[in-house]
Amino acid sequence: MNTTPENSEKTRELAWQIMHAALNAVEPGAAVRRHLHLANGRLRIGGLHGAERTYDLNEFDRALVVGGGKAGAPMAAAVNEVLGSRLAGGVVVVKHEHLLDDPTATGPIEIFEAGHPVPDEAGLQGAGRIADLLRSTTSRDLVLCLISGGGSALMTSPMPGISLADLQSLTQVLLGCGATINEINTIRKHISQLKGGQLAQLASPSPVISLILSDVVGDPLEVVASGPTTPDPTTFGDAWSILERYGVLDDVPASITNHLNAGLKGAISDTPKPSDPVFDGVQNVIVGSNRLAAQAAAAEAQRLGFDTILLTTFLEGEAREVAKAIAGLAKGLVRGETTHPSDRALLQPACLVLGGETTVTLRGDGKGGRTQEMALAAALSVADWEGILIAFLATDGTDGPTDAAGAFADGNTVARANRLGLDAEVHLAGNDSYHFFQKLEDLIITGPTNTNVNDLALILASG
Amino acid sequence: MNTTPENSEKTRELAWQIMHAALNAVEPGAAVRRHLHLANGRLRIGGLHGAERTYDLNEFDRALVVGGGKAGAPMAAAVNEVLGSRLAGGVVVVKHEHLLDDPTATGPIEIFEAGHPVPDEAGLQGAGRIADLLRSTTSRDLVLCLISGGGSALMTSPMPGISLADLQSLTQVLLGCGATINEINTIRKHISQLKGGQLAQLASPSPVISLILSDVVGDPLEVVASGPTTPDPTTFGDAWSILERYGVLDDVPASITNHLNAGLKGAISDTPKPSDPVFDGVQNVIVGSNRLAAQAAAAEAQRLGFDTILLTTFLEGEAREVAKAIAGLAKGLVRGETTHPSDRALLQPACLVLGGETTVTLRGDGKGGRTQEMALAAALSVADWEGILIAFLATDGTDGPTDAAGAFADGNTVARANRLGLDAEVHLAGNDSYHFFQKLEDLIITGPTNTNVNDLALILASG
Repeated sequence: MNTTPENSEKTRELAWQIMHAALNAVEPGAAVRRHLHLANGRLRIGGLHGAERTYDLNEFDRALVVGGGKAGAPMAAAVNEVLGSRLAGGVVVVKHEHLLDDPTATGPIEIFEAGHPVPDEAGLQGAGRIADLLRSTTSRDLVLCLISGGGSALMTSPMPGISLADLQSLTQVLLGCGATINEINTIRKHISQLKGGQLAQLASPSPVISLILSDVVGDPLEVVASGPTTPDPTTFGDAWSILERYGVLDDVPASITNHLNAGLKGAISDTPKPSDPVFDGVQNVIVGSNRLAAQAAAAEAQRLGFDTILLTTFLEGEAREVAKAIAGLAKGLVRGETTHPSDRALLQPACLVLGGETTVTLRGDGKGGRTQEMALAAALSVADWEGILIAFLATDGTDGPTDAAGAFADGNTVARANRLGLDAEVHLAGNDSYHFFQKLEDLIITGPTNTNVNDLALILASG
Repeated sequence: MNTTPENSEKTRELAWQIMHAALNAVEPGAAVRRHLHLANGRLRIGGLHGAERTYDLNEFDRALVVGGGKAGAPMAAAVNEVLGSRLAGGVVVVKHEHLLDDPTATGPIEIFEAGHPVPDEAGLQGAGRIADLLRSTTSRDLVLCLISGGGSALMTSPMPGISLADLQSLTQVLLGCGATINEINTIRKHISQLKGGQLAQLASPSPVISLILSDVVGDPLEVVASGPTTPDPTTFGDAWSILERYGVLDDVPASITNHLNAGLKGAISDTPKPSDPVFDGVQNVIVGSNRLAAQAAAAEAQRLGFDTILLTTFLEGEAREVAKAIAGLAKGLVRGETTHPSDRALLQPACLVLGGETTVTLRGDGKGGRTQEMALAAALSVADWEGILIAFLATDGTDGPTDAAGAFADGNTVARANRLGLDAEVHLAGNDSYHFFQKLEDLIITGPTNTNVNDLALILASG
């Protein structure tokens, strides 16, 4: 790859192929189908983490589906497709406008549309239906739980006596006092009926197969959708201390402090802990994750002839600065510095794959998102370098409040922008990456992908 | 490597061995000796970049040494050691207190001590002696030029009529108006006698062998010490435009604008351009660089049993954010994600080597530097992770205004600090990494190394 327009176009096509392979690997329906196999009434489930298990459906009266998250509908359709007449019913809560075109595809599973990221009454109603259904299950029921990003807000089911308005008031107080997202979630788990392993507890003694599409860097199961099928290491005492430490005990609705206080006194049992036998019956399976997407990207790049290294899926930090590090990796790669264990420099064309999710500190009032801002910062770092193409992709197809998934950066980006009268530094200073790449026609537009496993960075080099 | 104190101690010892191998590879004397071979009166010179050349010293009347930079003294001693009686003399300018213990080691080469980073009269005097010596050379002289970091300030030789005070006034005006370092150097090259290829021009028709210890990321020869033996792509017109654009033509001393104006009118010839035949007689050899140090580190890590990848020597960006990216690489490595082309995950223990130089935006008034701040930010990112050790090293042994070269970060750093009453977040917010690691006894202290090839990051992992 050099910088002639033809070769640049060709390299972008290859980058598109790599990105499509990554997105296909984590399409929610495909991700579920890949981990769920039914033959002769035996349901075999295998995941990236955790051992394979097989369930004889003839030993169960009902196979039920519950769950919530933005990818809920295509995941439910995939379960319906695999289980067919073996599926008795279920309830899944999805985000408004995240229904399938064909409403019959989810079969007997009831789909609730609800609010995200701010929970609404529809979500409470759907989550309440899930809780009611699980209270009815016995050891003759098999529960499949479908979890994806957004599941925490969508499956909001506060303890009796706590209203939606109380929850909203709590959120305002906690955000206002500077509590971290982990602290906020510790409190939420202790006033909710499903979070922090309590969904699995409600389903007990039914075995639970939890199929998880992870939208959190590193796939911490207790964090994805607030971990409805995962032990909760935090306690009522922790929740109370957080409110005490920030001095907001008096600002939080009494319904909430009363509930936490009852928990402190032991009048209400705590969320289930790792040693709880409930989890013997639970199989958590990550069906899709950033790692899976990155592995698919690396495999496709290798297949297309790139000498490829997958580096990590744990990339975090301020977008524009992490982008400089990515640009540094690209420069080392194209200069032939990148050398793998057998002491051979990577052959050109070469590819590095990284995943994770960065953050943007807003400085201006432009339009953009994490991945587009990374592309803009990277373009400045690799200006006038030959043989480098970097693609940044948000796997949900929606980077920040834009219709783009990301953007391309190469050594010509800044010069081409200058010729169009665009100043890369000015756009970066104003967080206005979208309008920069829109005018260059270098946006990566996939449309909504119905999945979310964070972001990918692809570095392609040919010296 | 796990987190028992014994294993942690053992891994640090291995990290020290890797760092020593890197530093030994770029020790200025060793670096020069490795590229300079004399046998039967024939001087053979080979470098990382550029072809090998051989000079028959019997064809020359004199072999002379000129140059400047912080590593000037040990480089001069190495040339004296290799050439012995073949060496006729020379002049090298070094920083105050950068002399050798044994002043006879540099033989007939005159060593000038001068000011850095602010040039002083001693530097002007030394640089003037270099210019005088070079004006005397003929095609029967062979000139060896020794260039290292700091050489630009140390070899300050303004054009006649421009005083040291004029130069200082120019620097103040340019820094005050927000000119970039590249813009400042463009102007400096056009009012100096040695910068921007003019040292080689003065030496002509003598052949010039320039031995360069690079302290600039990516080794751009026109930037290291302001490129005394490298073509200068910039012109008098560029220099003038910069002063015009910032509206500071009237603020700059008249001696300087008069000189630039004379150049604009063609009354003074411009700095030598890439097509200038002068450079046919010039051999630029990088004897030491970040890449060389990183390669030595990677080779030693591999020898010690680490499955190793050298990634890049182009790492740049804000220290604390780049550190998060480094931590992300460490997490991918210890989790077995890092997979090289033959589709094999790196075997544990594994090592990643990166080089470059980051920057710190000062927020507080604490004590620290780039590498120590990276270690502090990385420690926060890998808190409670097992099996990771990251070492950040400034190869000159002096990170920022401290006596430390860097620091170690691992998954226990933050917890150990907490037990000592140290808050990592508070120290990071105050740019106070030195006092944090000092109390933990996790500073990397090498003492001054007399070399400077930017910084290294070593990631060691064992899951």
